[in-house]
Amino acid sequence: MLFVELIRKKRDGKELSRQEVEWIVSACTRSEVPDYQVSAFLMASLLRGLSREETEALTHAMLHSGKVLDFSAIPGSKVDKHSTGGVGDKTSLMIAPIVAAGGVNVPMVSGRGLGHTGGTLDKLEAIPGFNVHLDLDEFRRILAKIGCAMIGQTEELAPADKKLYALRDVTGTVESPSLICASIMSKKLAEGIDGLVLDVKTGSGAFMKERKDSEFLAELMVETGERMGKKMVALITDMDQPLGRYIGNALEVVECVEILRGNFAGSEDLVELTLELCGWMFFLGGRTVTKDEGRALALTLIQSGQALDKFRALVREQGGDPRAIDDLTLLPQAAYREDILAPASGFIAAIECERMGIAGVMLGGGRFTKEDEVDPAVGIVLHKKVGDAVSAGDLLCTVHYNSVERFAEAKPVITAAYSIGAQKPRLRALIQKVIQGKAV
Amino acid sequence: MLFVELIRKKRDGKELSRQEVEWIVSACTRSEVPDYQVSAFLMASLLRGLSREETEALTHAMLHSGKVLDFSAIPGSKVDKHSTGGVGDKTSLMIAPIVAAGGVNVPMVSGRGLGHTGGTLDKLEAIPGFNVHLDLDEFRRILAKIGCAMIGQTEELAPADKKLYALRDVTGTVESPSLICASIMSKKLAEGIDGLVLDVKTGSGAFMKERKDSEFLAELMVETGERMGKKMVALITDMDQPLGRYIGNALEVVECVEILRGNFAGSEDLVELTLELCGWMFFLGGRTVTKDEGRALALTLIQSGQALDKFRALVREQGGDPRAIDDLTLLPQAAYREDILAPASGFIAAIECERMGIAGVMLGGGRFTKEDEVDPAVGIVLHKKVGDAVSAGDLLCTVHYNSVERFAEAKPVITAAYSIGAQKPRLRALIQKVIQGKAV
Repeated sequence: MLFVELIRKKRDGKELSRQEVEWIVSACTRSEVPDYQVSAFLMASLLRGLSREETEALTHAMLHSGKVLDFSAIPGSKVDKHSTGGVGDKTSLMIAPIVAAGGVNVPMVSGRGLGHTGGTLDKLEAIPGFNVHLDLDEFRRILAKIGCAMIGQTEELAPADKKLYALRDVTGTVESPSLICASIMSKKLAEGIDGLVLDVKTGSGAFMKERKDSEFLAELMVETGERMGKKMVALITDMDQPLGRYIGNALEVVECVEILRGNFAGSEDLVELTLELCGWMFFLGGRTVTKDEGRALALTLIQSGQALDKFRALVREQGGDPRAIDDLTLLPQAAYREDILAPASGFIAAIECERMGIAGVMLGGGRFTKEDEVDPAVGIVLHKKVGDAVSAGDLLCTVHYNSVERFAEAKPVITAAYSIGAQKPRLRALIQKVIQGKAV
Repeated sequence: MLFVELIRKKRDGKELSRQEVEWIVSACTRSEVPDYQVSAFLMASLLRGLSREETEALTHAMLHSGKVLDFSAIPGSKVDKHSTGGVGDKTSLMIAPIVAAGGVNVPMVSGRGLGHTGGTLDKLEAIPGFNVHLDLDEFRRILAKIGCAMIGQTEELAPADKKLYALRDVTGTVESPSLICASIMSKKLAEGIDGLVLDVKTGSGAFMKERKDSEFLAELMVETGERMGKKMVALITDMDQPLGRYIGNALEVVECVEILRGNFAGSEDLVELTLELCGWMFFLGGRTVTKDEGRALALTLIQSGQALDKFRALVREQGGDPRAIDDLTLLPQAAYREDILAPASGFIAAIECERMGIAGVMLGGGRFTKEDEVDPAVGIVLHKKVGDAVSAGDLLCTVHYNSVERFAEAKPVITAAYSIGAQKPRLRALIQKVIQGKAV
C-alpha cells in the first residue's frame, strides 16, 4: 500500500477499509512510515472525521498493536473506570479498593497529569514508597491476590497509542473524537476487562467544554466498546468547578482516605460521583442486579471499613507505606500555607476550573511539559464551593506551597478563578446524563 | 512562537497573520521545526483553505526565502511564461527565442517532467550538449547577451518551495490552490521579472481537470502576482488532448524547430497557443500596444527566421550543438518505430491526454519517480487529432521506442487512449478564457 494514497483518500473525505486502517497502524507502530506522513493523516482524519467503522477499526488495530491482557484465569468479572480528566478528580483512588472489596476485579492502568488536569499515578506516588511501575506479572499477581492493582502505561500495552499520542500532542491533532476514542479505548481494552464505566467530563475544567462534544465522544466510545464486545456505560459529569475539596497530589490522597473513613463533610459531590461510578461498576460486573443496589453496596463497603482495608492492602502490595493511610501526617507536607479570603459578600457564582488546575500546576503540583517534576505536597484546599454564601473576609481556600515565587505567581490566578455574585447561582447537575450500551 | 498553536489556529479555520506565515516559512526553510509539524500544517491549510492575504504572505515569504534576481541593469523589460503542465506542451522552447527576438527579455527558470507531464528541462537536454545547470552569473550573462536564457531551479531561488514541495508530494498536500499558487509564484517572481503570462491547463491531461478549479487557481495567481506589483495575465487553455503532434523530448524539439522554420502543418493548435502567449508577453513587456499586435509580431519573427536564429544562439550559448537545429537527425533517434492503426472508421472522439502522457513515461520518456532516467529519443507522433475523420486501418500515431518490453507495456495504454465515434465531436476551444490583472 502507498501511504500517500491513503492520506489522499481520507483527505478527500472517503472511508478507509478496515485493512487500510490496520495497515496504517501497523506501519506507524513499527516506524515503517515517516512521522510527517502520519501527522498529515492525523490532520486529515481530524478535519474530515472518521466513521464509526473506521473508529472501531482504528481502536481494534491500536489495541492489537501490543499485548492484550487475559485475566480469565482470575475468578470473577473485571471492570474498570476511565475519566476524561479534570481538576480534583480523584475517584479512581477510592473506586479501585471499593469495587475490589465488593468482589469485582479492577485491573487499572492509569495516566499522569498533563496540562491543567491531575493524574492518578501522580496521586498514588504521593504515598511514600508506592510503586506504579510494576511489570505485567506483578500486576497480575496483585490483582489475583487482592482484586485490584493500579499501574502506569507500559511499553507492551497499545504501543501504537504511545506513538500516535506523542505526534498528536505536537501537531494539533488531539481534539478529534475518533482519535480520542481510539486512544482511550485501545489502552483500556488492553487491560482485559469485561466492562468499562466512562466518566466523560463537561464544563470549564474538562477537555471538552461543551456538553454536546462530551456527549458525542461518550456515545462514540460506548458504541466502539460495544462493537468490541464490552459492557459499556458512560456518565456525562460536571467539571465546571473542581471536584471535592482538595486539589494537589498528597492533599487528594488525604481527601480519599477521609472519605473511605466515612468522613464525607465538604466532599459531597465527590462522594456522590464515586458512589454512582461504583454502582455502575458493580452492575456491569454482574455483582448487583441494578446500579442502585451497586451504589448501596459501595456505601456499605465504606461504612464497614472494608474499602479502607482494601486500600491499605493495595498500598502494601505496591510497595507503599500503609502507615501513611492511618497517619496522614506521614504524607508529604508543604512548608507554607496561606489563606485566600473573599473580597466581597454574596454567593460563589463560579470557580473557574481550568484556572484552578493551572494554579495547581504553577505551584508545582502538575506538569506543563512531560519532563516537569511534580511536587506532591503542594495544592489548594477549597472551603467554599459554587452556590455557597460568603461574607467579605471569609476563607475561600488555603494554598499549600513550598516556593514563595511560585505562590506569588499562582495567587492571582486562584483569586481570578472565583466569581462572587449577589444572587445564589443555579447549580449544574453533577451527573448530567447516562449513556448505556444496548447490551447493558 | 509555538508552531503547534499556529497549526491549531489554521486547523480551526482562523486566519494567520503575515508575521505568523513568515515565521512558519522561515522556520521550515531553516529546518528549525520538524517535518511532521509542517505536514500537519500543510494538510490543515489544504482542508481549511488559505485566504488571499495568507496566500500572498506565503508567496512573499517563500519568494524571500532565497535570492530574488535583479536584472534592472539589463535594458528592456523582463517577462516570463509559466504553464501548469500538460502533454506535448512545448511552447516554452519557442516562446523564449521568439519573445527575445522581439526585444523583450525572457529569464526562464523551468522544471522537469514528473508524472504524466513533460518538463522543459528534459526537452532542452535532448539537444546534444545543452546545459540547463548554469549558475546565476552565467544565466545573467547569457540573458544580457541574447535576451533569453533557460535554466533549472537552483538551491538559491525560493529554497522554501523546494523543501515544502518535497513534503507536499508525499503527504497528499499538493492539490491546494493556495499552496500551488505560492509554489509557482515564489519561483517565478524570484526570476526578477516585470510581468508573467500564466498558461493554466484544464482537461484530461491537466492537473486540474475541472474548468472551475483551473479558473480558481488562475485568478488566485493573477491576484497574488498583482498584489506583489507584477503585470499578470492568465489563459485557461485546453489540455483535453495532447498539444501539437509530438510527445517525447527530442520529438518535441523537432516540432518546435519545424514551427520556427515556418512549417505549421499538423501543429496548428500548438502554433495558435504559442502566438497568443507571445502576444501577451509582448503586450505585458510594453513592446506592443495590444496583445494582437504582439501576436502579429511573433508571427513575423518566425517567418523572418529571426526566432530560429535566436533559438540557435540560445543553444550555442548554453553549450548545445547548434548544428542539431539545422540537421534534426543529429537529435537522439529511437531504434524502433511502430504504427498504431485505427481499429474502426468514424471520427476521433477523444485522445485521453493523461493516458497518452503515461504511455510516454512508460516508453522511458518521463519519470514515475524523481530518480528515473529519461530516454530523450522515445515518444509518440500523432497523425490524427480530435475531430479528424478516420477509416479503419488508417494511421493514428507512430510510436518511437528503444525497448521492446516497454513498448509492449505502453501500446495498450496508447490504444485505449483513443475513442472513435460515429459523429464528429464538438471541439473544445483551445483558449477558454483570459483573466487579466487589473493593472494590465
